Amino acid sequence: MPMPAHVQVSEPAQSLKIDTAFTISAGGPGASDPRVQSALVRTLRSVRRQTGLMVSPQPSAGDAATTLKVSVAAKDHPAPQRLGDNEHYTLQVTGTQATLTADAPLGALRGLATFLELIELTPQGFSVPALSIDDAPRFPWRGLSLDCSRHFVPLPDLRRTLEGMSLVKLNVFHWHLSDDQGFRVESKRFPKLQELGSDGLYYTQNQVRGLIDYAYSLGIRVVPEFDMPGHTTSWFVGYPELASAPGPYSIERKFGIFKPTLDPTREETYQFLDEFLDEMTSLFPDEYFHVGGDEVEPDQWKANARIQAFMKQHGIPDEPMLQAYFSRRVQQLVSKHGKHMIGWDEALQPGIPKTILIQSWRGPQSLAVAARQGYDGLLSAGYYLDLMQPASQHYAADPLHGETAALSPEEQKHILGGEGAMWMELASPENIDAKLWPRLAAIAERLWSPASLTDPVSMYQRLASTSQWLEFNGLMHRAGLRLMVERLAPGASVVPIERFADVLEPTKGYTRNENGEKYTQSTPLNRLVDSIPPESDPAREFRMLVDHYLDNAANPQMASADLARIEADLRRWQSNLDAVRPLFSRSALLADCSGVADRLASILKTAIDAAEALRKGQHLTASETNARLARLDSDYVVEDEMLIQIQPAAKRLVMSLRPKK
Amino acid sequence: MPMPAHVQVSEPAQSLKIDTAFTISAGGPGASDPRVQSALVRTLRSVRRQTGLMVSPQPSAGDAATTLKVSVAAKDHPAPQRLGDNEHYTLQVTGTQATLTADAPLGALRGLATFLELIELTPQGFSVPALSIDDAPRFPWRGLSLDCSRHFVPLPDLRRTLEGMSLVKLNVFHWHLSDDQGFRVESKRFPKLQELGSDGLYYTQNQVRGLIDYAYSLGIRVVPEFDMPGHTTSWFVGYPELASAPGPYSIERKFGIFKPTLDPTREETYQFLDEFLDEMTSLFPDEYFHVGGDEVEPDQWKANARIQAFMKQHGIPDEPMLQAYFSRRVQQLVSKHGKHMIGWDEALQPGIPKTILIQSWRGPQSLAVAARQGYDGLLSAGYYLDLMQPASQHYAADPLHGETAALSPEEQKHILGGEGAMWMELASPENIDAKLWPRLAAIAERLWSPASLTDPVSMYQRLASTSQWLEFNGLMHRAGLRLMVERLAPGASVVPIERFADVLEPTKGYTRNENGEKYTQSTPLNRLVDSIPPESDPAREFRMLVDHYLDNAANPQMASADLARIEADLRRWQSNLDAVRPLFSRSALLADCSGVADRLASILKTAIDAAEALRKGQHLTASETNARLARLDSDYVVEDEMLIQIQPAAKRLVMSLRPKK
Repeated sequence: MPMPAHVQVSEPAQSLKIDTAFTISAGGPGASDPRVQSALVRTLRSVRRQTGLMVSPQPSAGDAATTLKVSVAAKDHPAPQRLGDNEHYTLQVTGTQATLTADAPLGALRGLATFLELIELTPQGFSVPALSIDDAPRFPWRGLSLDCSRHFVPLPDLRRTLEGMSLVKLNVFHWHLSDDQGFRVESKRFPKLQELGSDGLYYTQNQVRGLIDYAYSLGIRVVPEFDMPGHTTSWFVGYPELASAPGPYSIERKFGIFKPTLDPTREETYQFLDEFLDEMTSLFPDEYFHVGGDEVEPDQWKANARIQAFMKQHGIPDEPMLQAYFSRRVQQLVSKHGKHMIGWDEALQPGIPKTILIQSWRGPQSLAVAARQGYDGLLSAGYYLDLMQPASQHYAADPLHGETAALSPEEQKHILGGEGAMWMELASPENIDAKLWPRLAAIAERLWSPASLTDPVSMYQRLASTSQWLEFNGLMHRAGLRLMVERLAPGASVVPIERFADVLEPTKGYTRNENGEKYTQSTPLNRLVDSIPPESDPAREFRMLVDHYLDNAANPQMASADLARIEADLRRWQSNLDAVRPLFSRSALLADCSGVADRLASILKTAIDAAEALRKGQHLTASETNARLARLDSDYVVEDEMLIQIQPAAKRLVMSLRPKK
Repeated sequence: MPMPAHVQVSEPAQSLKIDTAFTISAGGPGASDPRVQSALVRTLRSVRRQTGLMVSPQPSAGDAATTLKVSVAAKDHPAPQRLGDNEHYTLQVTGTQATLTADAPLGALRGLATFLELIELTPQGFSVPALSIDDAPRFPWRGLSLDCSRHFVPLPDLRRTLEGMSLVKLNVFHWHLSDDQGFRVESKRFPKLQELGSDGLYYTQNQVRGLIDYAYSLGIRVVPEFDMPGHTTSWFVGYPELASAPGPYSIERKFGIFKPTLDPTREETYQFLDEFLDEMTSLFPDEYFHVGGDEVEPDQWKANARIQAFMKQHGIPDEPMLQAYFSRRVQQLVSKHGKHMIGWDEALQPGIPKTILIQSWRGPQSLAVAARQGYDGLLSAGYYLDLMQPASQHYAADPLHGETAALSPEEQKHILGGEGAMWMELASPENIDAKLWPRLAAIAERLWSPASLTDPVSMYQRLASTSQWLEFNGLMHRAGLRLMVERLAPGASVVPIERFADVLEPTKGYTRNENGEKYTQSTPLNRLVDSIPPESDPAREFRMLVDHYLDNAANPQMASADLARIEADLRRWQSNLDAVRPLFSRSALLADCSGVADRLASILKTAIDAAEALRKGQHLTASETNARLARLDSDYVVEDEMLIQIQPAAKRLVMSLRPKK
C-alpha cells in the first residue's frame, strides 16, 4: 500500500528468499545520489527491523549474488526536490534476484519502499513473492499538512512522521508553523515572534534546516505555511503594531476562529512581511510558499476607522475585497522572493496571477472553479484527519470526483493532488501517530494509485498489514495508545479497558470542542477518548459480521454460524462491563466513563435480545421493533466525547426482527 | 525503587495534587549547575509523559506557588563526575508543596527521580503522597556493564539505557568497547582498529563525547573497557603484529573464549598501547580506565618459541605470571596517563599497586581477598543479566555477603559497589531493553538501598510498577517484545502466542549456546525464545498461587478458592494450545515450538489431573505419585531453548497428593 499502478504476480508462484545473506547494491548514473545511498542503508535497517535478520548494515558493491539490484538511470537536478520530479520505477522479483530500475533517484526510493512492504513470513522463512511491477504516481503532489501551532510537535515526532510518509510514498510535508496559538519557527530578523509567541516551543533555524535535509533524503518536499492575515494572534504578542486593533496581545489559548488580523492598509505591514519573507524564503528552499489566507474575521477591520477610510479612499467595497487586496500584495512579495504562493480557497481572488496554487479545504467545487480559470489546485477537503472519520471515508474522497470530474482533461491537469491535514487542537505528540496512522496510508493510496482502486474491503485488509509494517519501521500508533490506556488505570490489566474501547470511537467532526468552550491549549488530552484509535477495527468487523449474517439469511448453516459469533461478541462485551466498571472509581481519568458503560449495557441488552429472538426464529411487532429502535437511538449519543459504534449493527439486527411483509 | 534509606509517610494521609499548573524551580548555590537545569526540564517532560498533563516545559522562576522547590546547597567540582560525589537528598512533600534539598547537584538529580516515581493516579487525579524522605546510597559505585562488541548497540539505544539507569539511580556506565567480535570506537592514531575490526559498526569520537556529555547530564560516569591481552581478535585484523601468533586475523564470528592474545614480550606492544592509551584516556575523562584482563588462553604464548624464551630469560615461570607481567606493564601505562586501572579478577597479581580496582566476575571471595590486601573491589558476579535469571536471584546477591561479610568495617570500605553486566552474544538492539529491564532496577535497589531490604515479594510488587514507570519514560522492554511477538505470526492475534509464552522462559545460564556451536554474530535472534522476557510474571504468579494454596490447606474456604483459580489458569493454558498450534505451521519462526507445546500439554494434563484429585479429596499411592513426578521431570527439559516454568508448581501439586503419613 499504496497499490502499484501495474502488478503482475509470477505464475507459477515463486518467491525470493530473504535471509541473513540479503544484500543490496545500486548502479547507474543516478546511484551516487545521496538520497539513493541513504535509502539503501535505510532499507537494510528496515529489513533488519522487519525480519530480525542480521543482514549487513552496508550496501554491497554489487556482485552477481546481490539479492536486490537497484539501477538508477539518470542523475537529478540539485536540491531541492521539485514538483513533478520523476518517481517512476519498475521492480522485477524472481526466485533468485530482485531488480529495481528507476528513471531517477526518487523512483529508487519509491521502489525500495515497495520492496520492503512485500517481505512476508512464510513457513519456509522470509521471502518476497516473484512478481513484476511498473509503478508511477497518479498525482505529483501527495502531502500531509501538519499543524504544529495548536500543540507543538517536537522534532523526533516530526522525523518519525516523515519516515512514515516516505514509506507510503507521500512527497510533501506541509508544515503549518504559525497560528493564533503559537509561532513555531525562529526568526532572526523578528525574534519577538518566537520569543513572545511560542512559550519557548519553536524550531530553531538549524533544526528547520536539519529537518528539511532529512525530508529531502526521504524524497519529501517541505512547504512551510505562515497563515495570514488572520490566524496571527501569536505574531502580535511581540509585534502588536501589525494588528488591525490596538494591543496588547497574548497567545491565544482557546481554539476557534479569532478576530486579530494583520492590518492590510499600512505600508509598514508589507515592509515587515517583505523582510520576514526574505528571511523565510531563504530558510525554506521549496519553490512553493504557503501564506494561508483562510477564515479571516472582518471585525477588527470594521471597527477600525482608519482601515474603513482606506477602503473608501481606494474603492474597496467590502472586507472580502480588502482581503483580496492584501492577498495580491502578499502574492507580489512572495513572487519577488522567487516563490509560488499557495493559499487556501479564499486566496482565489480576481486579478491573482495564475502562478498561485489553491489548496481547498472547502471541496472539489473550489478546485473546479480555479482550474477552469487556469489555477493549479490541491484537495484537502475529505482528508481532514482530525475529524476522526473512518479510513474508508477519506479513501472515497478523490481530487477528481464531483465537480472536478467534469473538467476537461486539460483542466484536470491543474489538479495536482491532495494533502491529508491534521489540525492539532485535540491531539498531542503522545497520540499524534494514532491520529495519523494508519488512516494516512489510505489517503496516500488514493493519491498514488489508480483511480479505479476503490474497494474499501480490500483497502481495509491491506491497511491492517500496512499498519503493522509501519510499526515495525518505527511508528508508534498502537504502542503509544497502549501506554496511554495503561495510564488510565496503572497496575491494572489493560484487557478490560481495551475490550471496552473496542466498541468506542471518538465523536466525529468538531463536536468535541463545540463552540470552542471546553478545550484550551493546556487541557489534558489523557482520557479514554484520547487513548483510543479514531476508528475501531473490532466495531467495524462486528458491523461487517452483522451485514454478512443478514445478507446470507437464506443459507441457514452460514447464518447460524454468523449468529453464534454475533452472540459471542455481544456477550463478551457484556461480561467485560463487570470487569471494567470497578476501574472507573479508581481512576480520575476514567471517572466519566460510567455513562458510556450504562448506554453500552443498554445497547448490548437490546442486541442480545434481538440475537436470541433471531436464533429462536421469533419476530416482533412493528411497535415492539420501533420501541427497541427508539431505545437504541436514545443510546447513540455522544457521551464523554465518544460514540458506541456497534449501535448501527444492533439496529440492523432489531430491524430484521420486523414482521415480514 | 530503589527504596530510599529513610521514608516517613505523613499521618493522616495527605497528598500533593499534580495538575496542569505543576511547576518546578531550583535555588541555592548549586542550582545553576547544568545537570540540575537539564534535570528540571527532563523532570517536567517526564511529568508530561507520566500524566499526560500539559505542564509547562520550562522551570519557573520559583514564586511561592511553585509545586516542587529544589534547593541545592553547594556547587560541584568541574566535570567529570567522580567516585563518591555526594548524592544525598531530602524530600518533603506536604498537601501543598514539595521541597527537595540536596547537598550537591547529584542529590538533586536523585531526588527528582524519586519524586517522579511517587506520582500516582487516584480517583481524584494525579498526586504525590505527603511524606518525608532522607536518602543516600549504600554504595558509591552502582553500574551497568554493557557489551557493545558481540552485537553493536546503536547510540539511540545507549541513550535510552542511560535514561533508564538515571531513573533508578545507577551512576556508572561501563562501556565494553572491544572484544574478539568487534572493536567499537574510532581511533585516529590506529584507524585500522575500527576500519578493519568493526564491520563499520563503531562509535566516532564525536559520538563518544556526545554520549559522555549526555551521561554526565544524567549523573552517570562513563568508564570505558578495552579488554586485553585476550579478547583481542578484532584488534589483530588491522594490526596482526600485536598478536602472539602470526596472522592474518579476521573478526571472530563465534562466541566463546578464543586464543588470539597480545604479545606481552615485545616492547612494540607497549609502545602501541602507550599511544593508544594516550588517545583513549583523553577521550574518556573518567578517573578510572578498564583494561579487562579476563579469560586469557595461554595457547599462543605456549606455542611461540620467542615468548617462551622471553619467559625463561626473565624468570617468568608460567603463563599466568606472564599475564601478571603484562598487567603490571599496562598498569604503569594507565597510571602514566593519569588513570586508575580496573581489571577483572585476574588483574589481582602480586606487586600490582593498590590504586587499581578489581571487578569480580568470580564472586565475593575474590573481593574479600583483594580487600584484605587493600584493593578496592566491585561485585558483578550475581548480576549477570545475560544468564536469564529471575530478578529475585540478582536481588539476593549482595556485595557484602559471603566472604565479604566477614571483612572488618575498614576492609568493607574497599567494596565500592557493583555492576549489572549484560553480555550481548544472544541479545540485539531489538530486545536489549527486555534483557535489561525491569531486572536491572532490582540490582539498582540492591546497590542503593539499605542491606536490610531483602523481601522478594515486596520487591516484585514494586518492580511491577517501576517497570511500567520506566516505559512511560521511554524504555521499550514490553513494547519491543510485543512487536517481536507480532513478527512471529504477522496478521495473527498476539494473544495466543503471549498466553503460550506465559509459561515459558529462556533457558538459564549459558546453555543456549553450549560449546559455542550454535550461534554466530549473524544468527538471527528473532524466534520465540528471543521475544519473551527473561522471567515470566504469570509463571511466577502461578507458582505463588500454588504455594499459597498448599500453605493454607487448613483453611478450606481459602483453599477452595485458590484451587479454583489454579484449575482455571491451567485450563486456560490448555485450551490456548488449540489456538496457538496452528500458527506454528504458518511461520518459520515458530516451527520449532511444536515440541514445547507437546511437553506443555503433558505437564498441563498431569497438573489438571492433580488439581481435580485435590478438589475431590483423592490421594495417590507413592508409586502413582512417583510416576507422575517422573513424567513431569521428563518434560522439564530445554526445548527450543526454553523451559516450561509452571512445572515446579505442577510438581508441588502432585507431591501434595501423596498419602499422608
